[in-house]
Amino acid sequence: MTKSYRVAILGATGAVGTELLELLDERNFPLSDLKLFASSRSAGKTMKFKGEDLLVEEVGDRSFANVDIVLASAGGSTSKALAPKAVASGAVVIDNSSAFRMDEQVPLVIPEVNPDAASHHQGIIANPNCTTILMAVAIYPLHKARQIQRIVAATYQSASGAGARAMEEVKNQSQEILQGKAPTSEVFPYPIAFNLFPHNSPMTANGYCEEELKMVNETRKIFNAPQLRITATCVRVPVLRAHSEAINLEFEQPLSVEEAKEILSQSKGVRIVEDWQANYFPMPIDATGEDDVLVGRIRLDISHPNGLELWLCGDQIRKGAALNAVQIAELLVEQNLLSAKSYQSSAIS
Amino acid sequence: MTKSYRVAILGATGAVGTELLELLDERNFPLSDLKLFASSRSAGKTMKFKGEDLLVEEVGDRSFANVDIVLASAGGSTSKALAPKAVASGAVVIDNSSAFRMDEQVPLVIPEVNPDAASHHQGIIANPNCTTILMAVAIYPLHKARQIQRIVAATYQSASGAGARAMEEVKNQSQEILQGKAPTSEVFPYPIAFNLFPHNSPMTANGYCEEELKMVNETRKIFNAPQLRITATCVRVPVLRAHSEAINLEFEQPLSVEEAKEILSQSKGVRIVEDWQANYFPMPIDATGEDDVLVGRIRLDISHPNGLELWLCGDQIRKGAALNAVQIAELLVEQNLLSAKSYQSSAIS
Repeated sequence: MTKSYRVAILGATGAVGTELLELLDERNFPLSDLKLFASSRSAGKTMKFKGEDLLVEEVGDRSFANVDIVLASAGGSTSKALAPKAVASGAVVIDNSSAFRMDEQVPLVIPEVNPDAASHHQGIIANPNCTTILMAVAIYPLHKARQIQRIVAATYQSASGAGARAMEEVKNQSQEILQGKAPTSEVFPYPIAFNLFPHNSPMTANGYCEEELKMVNETRKIFNAPQLRITATCVRVPVLRAHSEAINLEFEQPLSVEEAKEILSQSKGVRIVEDWQANYFPMPIDATGEDDVLVGRIRLDISHPNGLELWLCGDQIRKGAALNAVQIAELLVEQNLLSAKSYQSSAIS
Repeated sequence: MTKSYRVAILGATGAVGTELLELLDERNFPLSDLKLFASSRSAGKTMKFKGEDLLVEEVGDRSFANVDIVLASAGGSTSKALAPKAVASGAVVIDNSSAFRMDEQVPLVIPEVNPDAASHHQGIIANPNCTTILMAVAIYPLHKARQIQRIVAATYQSASGAGARAMEEVKNQSQEILQGKAPTSEVFPYPIAFNLFPHNSPMTANGYCEEELKMVNETRKIFNAPQLRITATCVRVPVLRAHSEAINLEFEQPLSVEEAKEILSQSKGVRIVEDWQANYFPMPIDATGEDDVLVGRIRLDISHPNGLELWLCGDQIRKGAALNAVQIAELLVEQNLLSAKSYQSSAIS
């Protein structure tokens, strides 16, 4: 008989929380109990799971007493406050916020890329930034084959990255503009419908925004390649869901298009989508709802002897967030990394 | 007394043609006569110019008999067929299509970048590709200062690049999707509303689309830098008008942010738009209707010792097409490069 687990979703009513619920169902995660938590604003709502209405409870310090796995997607400050308490009460927290990602004690895991890192967890495992996950899944197999030296990335990030309300804002603003009205901005600082702007995460001293530095620092940590040179320009676009990225790669040694395709066609979590005749390549609407990162336009970079260009789209809520978190949970189950005892002992080893 | 000129607009009813008409008015171009030409489909319409109704005539072989300057924006095949005839009848053709851009006999001119090239014309001057113009205006001053070695560009191209009907398609599809209907694609191969896709220009053998190779080859020609290494990924986004570009530059020698800003603040056709506190940088809605290319997020590239990143937006119809063409016409007037005699003699010299 398969073991089953007591799971809690923190931030259950958000865009990622909703997707977590769907994925636990769809992937038949071995559940013995499922609890939904949110802030007081959303507490009292119900959400469907396998035909049953589950009550969303207000999260508190003692919410995780009888929980094995917490899938947290309620923002950095909530995670910072509650994750240590959940761990203290015996749960493992898979945290979708940026709170712990760069913490040296916390593994930052993409199951297709660095599953082994999970075994060193001390109660918290961080789920990487969405844009980072999508890029890493697509390029890590190439990195393994020929060592990437430098990445120049430009992103095309959908509204879903800013949550469910942001997705509504794109639609509402579009409607307003089509009716000749001025668009109302509540979530984003500037109108996003029929417009775009550099990613609105806080700017840092070197002129990169936090989103861009996440791509830089998290990719280095996940690849265990602290010297990897990465630059990125992150941009919000009026797409509802699924991010796109134009990725320029410089390798230590040349990598042919044929070899890159061969490698990617064997890689988990990646699907090559290319119809050169029809000019058909990955698009957000095709990546939406998909588990795989769609990769295409794989071509030699004409500006660099060891360069390769590629284009990708991936569902930001799914593989970029909820799916990756559930895959980490599955990994913990498979490798028996869940009980407090097991992770404490492996932390010592 | 200022001399005045007989001007014809070919493709007058299109998105660029309409803008040409507006710019000739707005900039008080010295006109003694203005003729509007289009295909038989649009002939018979009237267009307003300085309060007067001008008739759009069907273009024919003899349309340019009494014309000094033809501003052509009717597509490559029309230009190929008619430009030589216009030149033979004594006109100078400023051609917005790609038909002659890479012709060694034809100067490819951005007045802020290579005005001197215009003097070698033999009757035809080509107006560069819109994406190329916007990038070139922004980076040429930096290239002059410190020699660019390599450019990695990613574009965010608005619907206007595919004409007035494409701009309607974005709006119509958005309306359809908001009403829960399937979007109707007529101009673009795939839905563009709330979506995006790699640029739909024909693919070439090396995996670059024609739009991308225009950026590569035209920039090299305009900069007179045949060895300049350039790669680009061109992408269509659901923006109505004004293109955006994420540009990564590698210089021969380091260029500081301060120096880059100092240079660009002195450069014609460029305006720095940066409010780091407010996370406010160039956006398509702010570039729309503007003559200048808006440049921002100028920062040192953390992945390359001589690298610089910048972000730009520019009105694709205006500086990317119509304005640049009118500026070329103004240049021809100022430098007395219009009469058949003058350009024939300079062609020999």
